[in-house]
Amino acid sequence: MKLVVAIVQNQDSKRLADEFVEKGFRATKLSSTGGFLRAGNTTFLVGVEDRRVESVLALIKENCSTRSQTMMSPPSYDFTLESDLTYPVDIEVGGATLFVLPIEQFRQF
Amino acid sequence: MKLVVAIVQNQDSKRLADEFVEKGFRATKLSSTGGFLRAGNTTFLVGVEDRRVESVLALIKENCSTRSQTMMSPPSYDFTLESDLTYPVDIEVGGATLFVLPIEQFRQF
Amino acid sequence: MKLVVAIVQNQDSKRLADEFVEKGFRATKLSSTGGFLRAGNTTFLVGVEDRRVESVLALIKENCSTRSQTMMSPPSYDFTLESDLTYPVDIEVGGATLFVLPIEQFRQF
Ligand code: NI
Ligand code: NI
Ligand code: NI
Repeated sequence: MKLVVAIVQNQDSKRLADEFVEKGFRATKLSSTGGFLRAGNTTFLVGVEDRRVESVLALIKENCSTRSQTMMSPPSYDFTLESDLTYPVDIEVGGATLFVLPIEQFRQF
Repeated sequence: MKLVVAIVQNQDSKRLADEFVEKGFRATKLSSTGGFLRAGNTTFLVGVEDRRVESVLALIKENCSTRSQTMMSPPSYDFTLESDLTYPVDIEVGGATLFVLPIEQFRQF
Repeated sequence: MKLVVAIVQNQDSKRLADEFVEKGFRATKLSSTGGFLRAGNTTFLVGVEDRRVESVLALIKENCSTRSQTMMSPPSYDFTLESDLTYPVDIEVGGATLFVLPIEQFRQF
C-alpha cells in the first residue's frame, strides 16, 4: 500500500473525485485553503495498493494536467479604444502536485 | 515516532478527540469534506512514539469501528400501505481507515 | 524530496505563508480545526528537496516558536479590589510541530 497525497485545482476536483469512485479508488478530500499558496486547491488522500499506484497517477494526470484555456479578456480601460472591446486570451489552468508516501501499516475497522 | 493518519466518521470524531486528550495523545484534526468521498468524515494526524502506535490503533478501533445501528425507516410512500408506517431498519455506521507513516524527523519548537 | 507536515498556530500562519513564498518554497495550507486539539491551528504541507529541508525547519522555527507575550489580564471580579483593575500577565503563544516524511515519488503535471 501507498498513500498518494494529491493537490489539484478546485475546478478539476469534482471530476477527479467522480473518476476515483468510477475506478474503485478510495479517496478522502481535505479542505485546503490556498493549495501551494494559490487560492482554490483541493488535497486528496488516496490509499492504494502498490500495483495500482501508476493507475492513480495516470488518472490524476488525465484529469488535472496544466493546460491552456482561451478566455475573453476583461474590457479595456484604455480610452483611446472602445471601452467594451474584449479579445481572446490564453490562460493556464489546472495542474497537480503529487507525493507518493510509503506506509508501514494500513488498517480498516 | 510515527505519523498516524486516521479517517473516521464525523459522528465518532468528538468522542475520539476526547479519548486522545484523556490518554495523552496529541492529535490534529483536519476538515475533510467527504472522507473517502462519502460526506461527513474527519481526518486526524497523530504523532506517536513507536511503542504507543498499537495503543492509538486500539483506541480508534474501540471508538470508531463499523457497527450496526437500528433506525426507524422513513415513512413508506407505497399507497397500498398506511403512508405513515415506519419500521426499524439496521444501518451500518462508523468505520475508520488508518495509515501509519514512517517519519524521518520529528521536531517541536 | 521530503514532505514536511507543519502544524502551527493560526496567528503565525499568515507570516509563515508569506515567508514560504518569499523564499521560494511551495506550501499547501490545510484547514485544521483544533490542531493538536487546541483551537486555531493551521497545517502546512511543504514539498522540499533534501538539501533544503533544514532551511524549511529553520524558517518555521524563526516564525512560529513558542514565546512569551505580555497581555493585560482580564478585569478582576474580586470585589475586595477595584473591579476594573487589570495588570500585565505573560502568556505563551506560538509553537510548531513538524514531521518530515520520506517520499517514494514526487510528480507534477
Ligand atoms: Ni470516467
Ligand atoms: Ni475514556
Ligand atoms: Ni521575510
